[in-house]
Amino acid sequence: MKRLAARPENRHQAQILSLLRDEGAMSRAELGDVIGLSRTKVALEVDRLTALGLTENAGPAVSRGGRRSTLVRLAQDMRFLGIDIGATSVDVALVDGELRILSHVSQACDVRSGPRAVLDTVVALAGKLRADAGVPDVYAAAVGLPGPVSFKDGAPVVPPLMPGWHHVPIRDLLSQELGCPVTVDNDVNIMAMGERQTGAARGAEDFLFIKIGTGIGCGIVLGGRVHRGVSGSAGDIGHIRVEDYGPACACGRTGCLEAFFSGAALARDATLAAKASRSTHLADLLSANGRLSAIDVGLAAAAGDPVAVELVREGGRRVGQVIAGLVSFCNPALVVIGGGVAGLGHALLAEIRGVVYRRSLPLATENLPIVLSELGATAGVVGAGRLASEIVFVAPG
Amino acid sequence: MKRLAARPENRHQAQILSLLRDEGAMSRAELGDVIGLSRTKVALEVDRLTALGLTENAGPAVSRGGRRSTLVRLAQDMRFLGIDIGATSVDVALVDGELRILSHVSQACDVRSGPRAVLDTVVALAGKLRADAGVPDVYAAAVGLPGPVSFKDGAPVVPPLMPGWHHVPIRDLLSQELGCPVTVDNDVNIMAMGERQTGAARGAEDFLFIKIGTGIGCGIVLGGRVHRGVSGSAGDIGHIRVEDYGPACACGRTGCLEAFFSGAALARDATLAAKASRSTHLADLLSANGRLSAIDVGLAAAAGDPVAVELVREGGRRVGQVIAGLVSFCNPALVVIGGGVAGLGHALLAEIRGVVYRRSLPLATENLPIVLSELGATAGVVGAGRLASEIVFVAPG
Repeated sequence: MKRLAARPENRHQAQILSLLRDEGAMSRAELGDVIGLSRTKVALEVDRLTALGLTENAGPAVSRGGRRSTLVRLAQDMRFLGIDIGATSVDVALVDGELRILSHVSQACDVRSGPRAVLDTVVALAGKLRADAGVPDVYAAAVGLPGPVSFKDGAPVVPPLMPGWHHVPIRDLLSQELGCPVTVDNDVNIMAMGERQTGAARGAEDFLFIKIGTGIGCGIVLGGRVHRGVSGSAGDIGHIRVEDYGPACACGRTGCLEAFFSGAALARDATLAAKASRSTHLADLLSANGRLSAIDVGLAAAAGDPVAVELVREGGRRVGQVIAGLVSFCNPALVVIGGGVAGLGHALLAEIRGVVYRRSLPLATENLPIVLSELGATAGVVGAGRLASEIVFVAPG
Repeated sequence: MKRLAARPENRHQAQILSLLRDEGAMSRAELGDVIGLSRTKVALEVDRLTALGLTENAGPAVSRGGRRSTLVRLAQDMRFLGIDIGATSVDVALVDGELRILSHVSQACDVRSGPRAVLDTVVALAGKLRADAGVPDVYAAAVGLPGPVSFKDGAPVVPPLMPGWHHVPIRDLLSQELGCPVTVDNDVNIMAMGERQTGAARGAEDFLFIKIGTGIGCGIVLGGRVHRGVSGSAGDIGHIRVEDYGPACACGRTGCLEAFFSGAALARDATLAAKASRSTHLADLLSANGRLSAIDVGLAAAAGDPVAVELVREGGRRVGQVIAGLVSFCNPALVVIGGGVAGLGHALLAEIRGVVYRRSLPLATENLPIVLSELGATAGVVGAGRLASEIVFVAPG
């Protein structure tokens, strides 16, 4: 079943492949203009890529005068696997060379059940997608994990939410079981790259992607590349201090951002409010469902429940305070808010914007858009697909 | 007086020059090993550089077996100007190609007296250094300014401490008056690069340089390069919120780091303590000098005055809280503490370390040294010299 996928032979071929991934079909003339190569040289490289099965002709280009050019595009049978392992679910998608999602499955799966069980689920889902699509081979796969990852080693490093995963060689295990090269990264990093590929951060070189889910994390993209830090823990902002005292955090300290605001904190505060009969709306939802989630708070807030609205505002204020500091520190071009709790939508966004615009350096916010994720639950698999393509679209050596 | 300095002709020549700047004299064989070029090719490029007057022979190398190699070094008459404009002083140094300080002058000069007066001082000091050294020509100069700088435009952008400087084309003005190419950057950025060149961060690829002076700023070096942000304001951490309330800040808000701890805040708190007779030591210094500075607090703390010790501790705690957040966020390999207030020394350092090691993510601090600046007051001019050399040591186009 396994064949060794073709690879570009040099830097120019790798550049051509990346351009076709990001821009879709292009004429040889356009490729030459962007890369700074002569028509003859581009034609030569494209012919080699086509011979390798990596690109193909896509019909005549619109004439720019002179000899009619032919469009070239990535081979239409090129496939990557994007895998997003969350705290409580696994998403696997089959994407084409231009990172369009061809099929996507999501399955509940507790990351605390350990690497073996979770990888079995991943391999089964990937096998099913490939079988359904009649695609035995993929060029490469990439995986996001909900914890710090040593990118170099392809393994999680002391991940707090993932008992039993420390230093397990996920990259090598999956590579063997999927029969293709694999990269492993932190889930927030791949979501950030997904938003950059086809979402709210399309084409942005320097931006922050803030994921507010069960916990809070940040994907840092600088110069178009993910900044991972020396230990792979960059962006782990959930335990930044916002007060000296406050609710106890899972990390054992007090005053952490996550202890004030996150999916878990929101559910906790809503449950307290419901039990104390401060909100009949939340109390009704609690008695109906037996438990409250961040989504319930969003529904209650949308329905005008004042306690829920206040919880969202207060949370937005807290996360906004931390984002304001990060904006002053790294002066990004854009901030994208994503993750499950981003489903709270514009009430949350308005509060975050208010705090950041008020508290950051004016020069840093003058032209700073703060927007919601566009890809939502698919950001992770798209970003993982992008990361997988980067394994293949590189020059040798 | 002006001659156009020679420049490298290609990427390999630029690499050779940068290596000789950072490593000193090297043999052709060593250069070839590091750059990945054949001996013949290296010899060719070195010959061209020597013909251009950029390099010269430096005697025989220690034999590695085989034919004896000759050491090559940067031309000994190569000179750069490093200029560090602070809030209240101007430093100008003449450095050689390896960024050794040959002569250095410092003069009191209030940046609020406006660009014309300050640039006149700079040009006069630079002229004096060049005349004293018998060096009419320098290859390039670089300038640090105490405010946000648009690196691309070579001009300050809404700098809060520098009335009258907004958008003044400092790079172009100085280039004309000094008769050489000039780069302009934020002063904390050049200090960070100075520490990286010959100080506490020698060779570090990813580190933070925290300057605690009249205000507080941060130089961010990632992948060996200064991260400046989209508006040039990256690292402006003085107004990050540490509390909702607190002393009023110059920016008009409350709760900013700088309002709690900086040279200015320390002088303010020490003066209050002296006037309230809470510290006889500080009261004596105040009546002797008419005013108190951060240095006085350091002296009093070193002499065991409990109020001064408490001020240093409390300040260290505040700045430590902010650094802890930045460490969690960007996971650097090293933190260097510099600036005038760093003169408070190990009492301050101990407090900062305590807070950062306690509050940051354990994975991010596992191998994180937090150290004091080694270059002190010369970090700026060395870093500026380095930046100046980067103007020259680049391939054309």
